[in-house]
Amino acid sequence: MKLINGGVTAAQGFTASGIHCGIRRNTSKNDLSLIFSSVPCTAAAVYTTNLVKGAPLTVTKAHIADGKAQAVICNSGNANTCNADGIEIAEGMAALTADALGIDPADVVVASTGVIGQPLSLEPIKNGMGELVSKLSEDGGLEAALGIMTTDTIPKEVAAEFELGGKTCRIGGIAKGSGMIHPNMATMLVFITTDAAISPDMLQKALSGDIQSTFNMISIDGDTSTNDMVTVLANGTAGNAEITCEGEDFTAFMKALNTVTVGLCRMIAGDGEGATKLLECRVTGAQTPDIAKTVAKSVICSSLLKAAMFGADANWGRVLCAIGYSGAAVDVNKIDVSFKSAKGEILVCKDGAGVEFSEEKAKEILLEKEIEILVALNDGDHDSVAWGCDLTYDYVKINGDYRT
Amino acid sequence: MKLINGGVTAAQGFTASGIHCGIRRNTSKNDLSLIFSSVPCTAAAVYTTNLVKGAPLTVTKAHIADGKAQAVICNSGNANTCNADGIEIAEGMAALTADALGIDPADVVVASTGVIGQPLSLEPIKNGMGELVSKLSEDGGLEAALGIMTTDTIPKEVAAEFELGGKTCRIGGIAKGSGMIHPNMATMLVFITTDAAISPDMLQKALSGDIQSTFNMISIDGDTSTNDMVTVLANGTAGNAEITCEGEDFTAFMKALNTVTVGLCRMIAGDGEGATKLLECRVTGAQTPDIAKTVAKSVICSSLLKAAMFGADANWGRVLCAIGYSGAAVDVNKIDVSFKSAKGEILVCKDGAGVEFSEEKAKEILLEKEIEILVALNDGDHDSVAWGCDLTYDYVKINGDYRT
Repeated sequence: MKLINGGVTAAQGFTASGIHCGIRRNTSKNDLSLIFSSVPCTAAAVYTTNLVKGAPLTVTKAHIADGKAQAVICNSGNANTCNADGIEIAEGMAALTADALGIDPADVVVASTGVIGQPLSLEPIKNGMGELVSKLSEDGGLEAALGIMTTDTIPKEVAAEFELGGKTCRIGGIAKGSGMIHPNMATMLVFITTDAAISPDMLQKALSGDIQSTFNMISIDGDTSTNDMVTVLANGTAGNAEITCEGEDFTAFMKALNTVTVGLCRMIAGDGEGATKLLECRVTGAQTPDIAKTVAKSVICSSLLKAAMFGADANWGRVLCAIGYSGAAVDVNKIDVSFKSAKGEILVCKDGAGVEFSEEKAKEILLEKEIEILVALNDGDHDSVAWGCDLTYDYVKINGDYRT
Repeated sequence: MKLINGGVTAAQGFTASGIHCGIRRNTSKNDLSLIFSSVPCTAAAVYTTNLVKGAPLTVTKAHIADGKAQAVICNSGNANTCNADGIEIAEGMAALTADALGIDPADVVVASTGVIGQPLSLEPIKNGMGELVSKLSEDGGLEAALGIMTTDTIPKEVAAEFELGGKTCRIGGIAKGSGMIHPNMATMLVFITTDAAISPDMLQKALSGDIQSTFNMISIDGDTSTNDMVTVLANGTAGNAEITCEGEDFTAFMKALNTVTVGLCRMIAGDGEGATKLLECRVTGAQTPDIAKTVAKSVICSSLLKAAMFGADANWGRVLCAIGYSGAAVDVNKIDVSFKSAKGEILVCKDGAGVEFSEEKAKEILLEKEIEILVALNDGDHDSVAWGCDLTYDYVKINGDYRT
C-alpha cells in the first residue's frame, strides 16, 4: 500500500467538481461540491451524536438505508439546520442533483455546512447545477475539496493505492474542518471514495470500526457539530472479488481506509481554527483500550495544555492535570511524560513527578509544527492516539507564559 | 440579610494579612496569605475531584478531619503538586504558621496555587512568617485576597450580614480564579469565614450542599484544577445559639453562605483568563434538576458560544448545538432561547427554530459586560444557573465573526 496524490477522484470511475454558486457572499470561495460515480456504489456512513441534527443528515440517512448511493452534493456557507423547511430543502438539493445527473434522488448523499439557523434557498443551487455537472472531471477532486471548506485554511485530500487479490485498488477522501470538532462519533464532513468492491454491510463495518480510533479521536474545540458525517462510496470498478466477509481482503481494505482517515485526521487537527501546531497524544501501557482513549482525548482537549503548546512551554503539569480529571482509573504515580518532535524527544515527568530536564532542549522540540505528547501509563498493554491542535493568542497570552 | 464591604475579616474575631515573601520573582505581587481566628473554629471543606491532588489538600484534609481549625496559610506562585517532598513541605508550612501563632499545627489549613511540578522551598515562607503574623489585622482581608491571586486581574472579596436568633452574624470570603476552572466538585481556592456558631457536621452539610449550585456551576476553561478547595471557618463569636440541626437558623445561614458564594462565583467567572464579559446561563423548565444543570453547564462551556459572545454575535445556533451534545434528554423542538443584559432582552429562537429579530438590538444587548443566556426547555419545573465568560481574541478572530 502506498500514498498517492489526489482525493475523491483518485479511485477509478469517480469524477468531482466545485463551484461558487452564490450561497456565500464571497465570490472567490467555492460553496457547492459534487462527487459522482459512473456506476452505482455501495455506501456507508456515520453521523453526529448531537441531538440537534442538520436536515441533510436525516435525508442522507434515509437515502443510504438501502446501502446504495451514486453521488454526493454538499454546500458550504449554510448548515441547513434548525430551519423549519430543512428537510424539504435537503430533498430539493438531492432532486436537483439527481435530475441533472439522470439518477434516482434516493441515490444522492446530501450534506451542508456553515451557519446554523438561517434559511437556505435552493435558488443558487438550482442556478449553479448546470455548471457544477458540466465541470465534473477526474481532476475535479481539489475543486470539490475547496467547495466544502468553511474556516479551513487548506483543502484536505488524502489518497492511497493498495491491492486486493492481485487487483490494484484506490481509496481517497476529502474533509472539511475546522471548528465545532470534538470526538463523539463521527466528526466533521468527510467523503471517501474507492473503486474496491465491498458489500454494504462490510463497508459499514469497516467505517464504523475505523472511526473509533480516527475521527473520534480528534478535538479542535470540544464542540460536537450538528452536521457531522463521514460517508464512503465504493463503486467496485477495480474488479476485485467483492469483499463480503472478514479475512485477508477486508484487513487490507481496513488498512487502506485507515491510511486515508488518519491522514485526514492529521490534516483536520493541524488546521484547527487558529492553530499553529498539530498535537498528537500517544498513550501507551493502559489497562484497557477505553482508559487509553479517555486519557489521550482528555490531554488533547485541555485548553491549558493547548495554550502551553502554543507558547512552546514544557508545562507537563498540565498533562498530568488533564489525565487526573479525565475520569480514567490510572495510577498517577506510575505515569511518565515525554515531548517529541523532529528535533528529538525529552522526558519531563517520571513516576508522576518532575525530573530535571533541559528547558532549552524542550523549547527547541516544542517550537516545531508537529508535537507528540507521549504518555506512558506503565499499567497494561493498551495504546491509543488522539489528535488536536494548540490554542493560540490571547487566552494564550496569559497561559503560554504562565510557568515562567 | 445585606451585603457589606470586606471579605475574610468581615466576621468578628478574624484577622488576615498578605505579603510578598519571595516565592514569586515579581516583588510587587503578594505571594503569601494568612487568615487567623482569635478562637478555635468549626471547619468544613470540599476538594477537587482530580486524581492528581496537590499535597496541601492531603494535609488540609487530615487537619480538618476533627472538624476544627484556627488559621489558613496559603501561597501563590507554586502549587506544591507532583513534588516528591510535597507533603513534608505542606506540613512544614503548617508547622511554621502554628509556631508563629502559638497554636496546634493540626489546626492550620494549608493551600498552595501556581505552577505544578516545581519544588517549593520553605525558605521564603520561613523568612516571611514574622512579617506575615505581625501584619495580621482586621483590615488585612484585602492583602490576603491579593496574596492568593495567580492570573486574576482583581482581588475577589464578598461579605454579608445576617441575623440568627436576634444576634447579628457576618460571613465573608475571598477567592482565587482564574484558569483551570471547570465545574467538578469544588473548584478554585475559596476561603470563607463567619462568626456564626455552627457544628462541624452542619457546617459541612451547608458547604457541600451549597457548592452544587454555586462553585460547581462555573467554568472558565474546562480544566479541573489539582489544587481546588473551598474551606469555611466558623468561630462562633457572634454569640448565637449554635446551629446543630436543620431549621430556621440553618436556612438563614445557608442563605447568607449562598449570597457570598454566588457573589464569588460571579467574580471568578467575570475575571476568567482573558475574559471581557460575564456569561450567566439560566435554564428553566427542565424535567429534572440534573437536566437543568447539564444544559446550563454545556452552554457555558462551549468555546464557540464563548467566542460568539466576545464578538457580540447573536449566534444562537451555537446555544442549541451545545444543548444538543450535552447528553441531557431534551426535546429540541420545545426550546426557546433569549439573550438579556442591562440593555434589554431579545428572543432569538422559538420551538427550536430561528425567529426574526433585530440584529441591531441583539448587538446592543450583547455589547454589555454581563450577559444572560436564557434557555427555556418548556418541558418541566426545574431551573439552574451556570456562570462562565467569553473566549477572547484570535480563536475569536475566526469565530466571533463566523456568522457574518
